[in-house]
Amino acid sequence: MIVWNSLSGEQQQALLQRPGVAAADNVRPICEDIMAKVQQQGDSALKAIAAKLDKRSTEAEILCPQQDIIDAQQQLSEELKAAIDQAYTNIKRFHQAQQPKSISLSTQPGVSCELRYEAIDAVGIYVPGGSAPLPSSVLMQGVLAQLSGASTVVLATPVKGDEQVHPAIRYAAKLCGITQIMQIGGAAAIAAMAFGSESIPQVNKIFGPGNAYVTMAKQLAAQQVPGLAIDMPAGPSEVLIIADSRANGEYVAADLLSQAEHGPDSQVILLSDSDEVIAATERALERQLATLSRADIARQALAHSALIKVRDIDQAVRISNLYGPEHLILQLGDSTPYLNNIKNVGSIFVGDYTPESAGDYASGTNHVLPTYGYSKVYSSLSLLDFYRTYTVQTVTKNGLADLANAIIPIAEAEGLDAHANAVRVRLGASS
Amino acid sequence: MIVWNSLSGEQQQALLQRPGVAAADNVRPICEDIMAKVQQQGDSALKAIAAKLDKRSTEAEILCPQQDIIDAQQQLSEELKAAIDQAYTNIKRFHQAQQPKSISLSTQPGVSCELRYEAIDAVGIYVPGGSAPLPSSVLMQGVLAQLSGASTVVLATPVKGDEQVHPAIRYAAKLCGITQIMQIGGAAAIAAMAFGSESIPQVNKIFGPGNAYVTMAKQLAAQQVPGLAIDMPAGPSEVLIIADSRANGEYVAADLLSQAEHGPDSQVILLSDSDEVIAATERALERQLATLSRADIARQALAHSALIKVRDIDQAVRISNLYGPEHLILQLGDSTPYLNNIKNVGSIFVGDYTPESAGDYASGTNHVLPTYGYSKVYSSLSLLDFYRTYTVQTVTKNGLADLANAIIPIAEAEGLDAHANAVRVRLGASS
Repeated sequence: MIVWNSLSGEQQQALLQRPGVAAADNVRPICEDIMAKVQQQGDSALKAIAAKLDKRSTEAEILCPQQDIIDAQQQLSEELKAAIDQAYTNIKRFHQAQQPKSISLSTQPGVSCELRYEAIDAVGIYVPGGSAPLPSSVLMQGVLAQLSGASTVVLATPVKGDEQVHPAIRYAAKLCGITQIMQIGGAAAIAAMAFGSESIPQVNKIFGPGNAYVTMAKQLAAQQVPGLAIDMPAGPSEVLIIADSRANGEYVAADLLSQAEHGPDSQVILLSDSDEVIAATERALERQLATLSRADIARQALAHSALIKVRDIDQAVRISNLYGPEHLILQLGDSTPYLNNIKNVGSIFVGDYTPESAGDYASGTNHVLPTYGYSKVYSSLSLLDFYRTYTVQTVTKNGLADLANAIIPIAEAEGLDAHANAVRVRLGASS
Repeated sequence: MIVWNSLSGEQQQALLQRPGVAAADNVRPICEDIMAKVQQQGDSALKAIAAKLDKRSTEAEILCPQQDIIDAQQQLSEELKAAIDQAYTNIKRFHQAQQPKSISLSTQPGVSCELRYEAIDAVGIYVPGGSAPLPSSVLMQGVLAQLSGASTVVLATPVKGDEQVHPAIRYAAKLCGITQIMQIGGAAAIAAMAFGSESIPQVNKIFGPGNAYVTMAKQLAAQQVPGLAIDMPAGPSEVLIIADSRANGEYVAADLLSQAEHGPDSQVILLSDSDEVIAATERALERQLATLSRADIARQALAHSALIKVRDIDQAVRISNLYGPEHLILQLGDSTPYLNNIKNVGSIFVGDYTPESAGDYASGTNHVLPTYGYSKVYSSLSLLDFYRTYTVQTVTKNGLADLANAIIPIAEAEGLDAHANAVRVRLGASS
């Protein structure tokens, strides 16, 4: 336990410092090499890279067969299928409510202005593989692509050896109306979506988390391909819990561990004004750790995390705002007085019965959140990320005659004669 | 005149190719050096750099004195003051209508989810200097910062020698409630806003156009400072005009020129189904060019631009969608049938009396627009760019009992025991 008020300002700052996330030096050249090959040789490069890195047969299809997407549910337990259905429904409900509406108004007589939303036409979604399939990652991106009406959606996920794409991934994709699943991961998959290949359509925006190679490839793609966008910067996942004296140490520990098990670089912080709750949490951490399959990973994450004693809950909120956590859990008797003071956060979990895993999977909110302090300026993933806006203006001749009083003097002050002339030529001419 | 249908597919593509915009090799190291100095030495580096690059006195203030902002209007003509007032009012009206609303709903019984908007706390606005003051650039960013309620707004603009910040800039800033005007430009100004200094507060997001040094400094700042964001990628300005046979060549030429005068790298394209309109435009271009103070610049831009004959207006719309212009002007008898087919664009100007300069200054729409093909995926600047979102969820014990049916099976499929355990520990414990 660390007592916040016993620390100097510098020590306090150091305590909230996130671990560095610089990629290894060789990540960039490896990605550049892979991406250049995919750009130049298309499908044949994709197959060669998958054979080399993931031990795929060079005969293996790049795209998962349609029938395998349709049949996925037969390979799932009823329980898991129902779980994915329920998560899908809640996520869809919450994001459907975010459907943007165009704005149209007259700013002055004869001058009408509109803001219109248009879905991004072609999007790519990356779903990491590794130790386990991540159907939740499909839903958290795929539902939004589906709601936006994007005309092209490509999902990429790595598959090793002679495996199939996991049925939970295929089933989640099917719910989201995704028909193109690229069974290839890493920088090669990002390159295929960025440049296009014989099998893979070029996309306008690439979403999704991934390892250092995926992250680097996304950054390189955004630099190399004009008009390509990527989603927000990625970083290690993190949770901050604020717990008052009536909080249950078992719940607090369970939430800390569900973040810590994500990876050794996860960061978990508890702020409490209660010695007893901190002590109970410490005991519960040890007890629960013993039961976890990923206990080793969680222990590593806990090693650079902190249980901090604060003076009161107001101080905890101020510390949380300084840190700007991806996930903030409020295990408070009444969170209401504090909620409006919270500014920098990705997602808030209110009360004793709202674990982080509720939002990770099924409450309906998106689990793609700004981490690593980016909550001060970046947004939780929302339906708007699958749209872009443009404006439309229509001015009548009378409208232009009045607007000329604003346009011409400013254009002249800015030394842009032709801008003023474009108005004068119209008003001088008879209609 | 170029006839679209006489070109091969490759020639068509080449015609719509934008000129390259790679920065000179020395831009990056120069910016890195300036930024490191500002980060390490703060105000003293700012003063030294302004003395060296802009011939400022080392005694000159970094911030424009408050009284000079208050007194600005006394140094303006009534005409220019009224023009800025009118533009400010229209821009404010259109962006005020974009004020975001939080979304709150219950996704299933006992599970409530919210999407909340929070203004980005501290923003920096860059206003280029160079040949003329740009009060419109102040308004197009400053009004949005004002409407968002950002608590810190810093405006940076370069000033040479013993000049003052131009009164039009100061007056526009005053209307927007901006009290901090940094009288320094270039990479040093970006660094000051990114890192903070004794005089300049550190900001969360930096907006605004600029030269190659400003653009590079913004990119470096976003890489170097965790949690710092920048606005959309910048590129040369461009206009595409679609004109039918009844269009007025004088208007078309005036709009082409008002884009061409921006810079030698501006791109202007006319698509028309009428030989007569194209010929009339060519004649009007020569006539109008003779009258312009920036004729040399406009001529250079026109040299790599194109007047293209199309089969019909539908074909013109398809070409425009391929190109994705920053500005699209429709000089058509009736634009309505075409408007909904236009997809990739920053801003549309409808009809004979809506020159681009209307939107550049005063109609109310924003003139910060995605260029260089980015309209396929990026948005016109809107009030939302000054906000970020976060989510809040509150689950009751009964809600969690039902949500458990979704959370636990997915968590187990993903191999994340602790995620499942965070639910089980709550449902097992008595409340």
